[in-house]
Amino acid sequence: MVKNAELAELAERAGLAERAELAKMARLAELVDLPPIYCPFPSAVHPRAEPVHGRAVDWIQKSGMCGTDEARAWSVASHSADFFGRFVPEAEDERLFATSLWVYWAFTFDDARCDHGPLATRPGEFAGLAVRVQRAVEAPSNPDATDRFIPPLQDVARRLRAIGTPTTTRRFAVAHRAWRSGVTWQIGNRARGHMPDLDEYLAMRLLSAGGEPTFALLELATGGEIPGGEFDRPVVRALTELAIAVAGLDNDWHSAGREALRGHSEQNIYTVLMRHRSLAPADAVAEATAIRDRLLNRFRQLLDRVLPRAGAELRTYLAGLCHGIRGNAEWGLRVPRYLSTGRLPDGFSEAPVEWADSPADSRAGPPPTPTVSWWWDDDLA
Amino acid sequence: MVKNAELAELAERAGLAERAELAKMARLAELVDLPPIYCPFPSAVHPRAEPVHGRAVDWIQKSGMCGTDEARAWSVASHSADFFGRFVPEAEDERLFATSLWVYWAFTFDDARCDHGPLATRPGEFAGLAVRVQRAVEAPSNPDATDRFIPPLQDVARRLRAIGTPTTTRRFAVAHRAWRSGVTWQIGNRARGHMPDLDEYLAMRLLSAGGEPTFALLELATGGEIPGGEFDRPVVRALTELAIAVAGLDNDWHSAGREALRGHSEQNIYTVLMRHRSLAPADAVAEATAIRDRLLNRFRQLLDRVLPRAGAELRTYLAGLCHGIRGNAEWGLRVPRYLSTGRLPDGFSEAPVEWADSPADSRAGPPPTPTVSWWWDDDLA
Repeated sequence: MVKNAELAELAERAGLAERAELAKMARLAELVDLPPIYCPFPSAVHPRAEPVHGRAVDWIQKSGMCGTDEARAWSVASHSADFFGRFVPEAEDERLFATSLWVYWAFTFDDARCDHGPLATRPGEFAGLAVRVQRAVEAPSNPDATDRFIPPLQDVARRLRAIGTPTTTRRFAVAHRAWRSGVTWQIGNRARGHMPDLDEYLAMRLLSAGGEPTFALLELATGGEIPGGEFDRPVVRALTELAIAVAGLDNDWHSAGREALRGHSEQNIYTVLMRHRSLAPADAVAEATAIRDRLLNRFRQLLDRVLPRAGAELRTYLAGLCHGIRGNAEWGLRVPRYLSTGRLPDGFSEAPVEWADSPADSRAGPPPTPTVSWWWDDDLA
Repeated sequence: MVKNAELAELAERAGLAERAELAKMARLAELVDLPPIYCPFPSAVHPRAEPVHGRAVDWIQKSGMCGTDEARAWSVASHSADFFGRFVPEAEDERLFATSLWVYWAFTFDDARCDHGPLATRPGEFAGLAVRVQRAVEAPSNPDATDRFIPPLQDVARRLRAIGTPTTTRRFAVAHRAWRSGVTWQIGNRARGHMPDLDEYLAMRLLSAGGEPTFALLELATGGEIPGGEFDRPVVRALTELAIAVAGLDNDWHSAGREALRGHSEQNIYTVLMRHRSLAPADAVAEATAIRDRLLNRFRQLLDRVLPRAGAELRTYLAGLCHGIRGNAEWGLRVPRYLSTGRLPDGFSEAPVEWADSPADSRAGPPPTPTVSWWWDDDLA
């Protein structure tokens, strides 16, 4: 976690003389003193994440998706095998390798084409690329070299197809499209300087955070296929979306420091609450934490409702959601992607992590977000 | 079909004095003398499409989705119960009613928010609306009245959920997202004056034409659920996409006259071929017809491969694809949506329709469109 003192030093070193810039950074800096995250699920790591990471580093080198050594260093620094290994600590190595490759790809693509780069404020052009990217997942045998990110994604898609069933492969593909639509939305907002309100932000974050395809990798990594009659139940959708929302808000927590340092703070849970509720940074942090903990609370309630009658594959999947919430939070607290402040990433942090003892909000109802109020429907089944 | 003479008369009546405008219309007018469509599948209509249409007219009136009497007249003039009844000639009335309502909704939404209206050239804002619309399908219990099209869509989604299984409802929802992503792409191209090439156009048309959700209504209308292991097979996806592509190109055929009259001709198979292959209109028409007929040819080949071992639900679905190709072509030749040239639509045409005796191109390989070349993969299974 980047502390205020470090931030001030960095701002000084960066030579940011203008008063306005300094004021903006100081305001955002308040955000980085965030309370510890609450997570009741136990920690788990994949015992062979490190050798899988080593193979992925080779793949990244050969993939051609990184335009510079710096981009490659950041791609490697996502430590995606560690990340996704925490979601599926018992996965076979080959399955962890193939699924992790997608995560490396996605972080790298995000940095170069979504959050930064020339398309980051051009929704019309990005929408076109987004659909070509989607096509790469759905039809990996098509020749398409219109963007350097497409052939490596096709390679990943072929690997996923080889370890999945037609249905789990297809579930991943439709989840991938959901992610793309959210990023297009986010870019559209950025292009016109629109700061979403809380409800719109949550709806967007559910898609743009990449949780849909990441959790859709669970079945591909563990090798099962949940019967459609279970997987498509609204309550199982709600559990998936809740896990995505919690992880997405935790990523807002993780990236608050990095984004502030890059002068790129926009459309996250804190800025949304500050803008639309006129909250001071500290109050926005408290409110964001309360909302996130209420989502986690509902996740646990629904989990208790579903688990007793869940089939074996669904149980494995639900365990993956829990692992994923914990693993994402934990990885984000250690990974150089979020922690490093220089032009090039540092190593993986081994510092001990502090966790909150209890949720910041244990009320039973939904937060004031109509978009997700159906997660609290009484008849959810 | 609008003939050149009528077009010239209309141009005169509209008082289009400028030489440039007249030249443009004359050029486009050549396009509306199109050759008859080839379709080997037999015609079928739903015997109770007319009373279902009557109920839908009431629903449209009460739905609140039409801002003006003119918009309502055009919504009714889509004759969507006739349209979708041709896809599912044996469906129960209640199922035809619920599924047709979505089609009325979609045509009306398209006219007001996608092809015309303030969002038609604003991809960033449209992307935001697109995801809210998607949310209405996925979570119809959420309160959301941010756009007048959302509550009626939620009503339709509740009806679909009531007649579907969790899996068929979910398949419809993900197909709906695919449609939205294509329309966002199309709007992005329009906003920056970008005319896609043939390959990009086909990839976009597969999504923007609305074929994904329309064919996903088949299961909801007939009441079956295809097992995932069959539905998600790549060859079944290819068949679905081929049907969508053929129907989408047929809709380009249908709308060429209407769009020329409205000065709104852009991004269709003819303009794409004229622009990027430097083809004269008549040659673009011939090339478009050849491409469309090659797709239909491949559809029939794959159909013959899949049918013998298909389960009962899959057979019903594949029959629906055939009905849909024929029904879409036939409906488009009669419906006031495409035929009417005035401010308000005329009645349904009862004129006899002429069909081509044979395909314009019976070569076996793919057209020069890498995006869809995987439909010709030898190992497609």
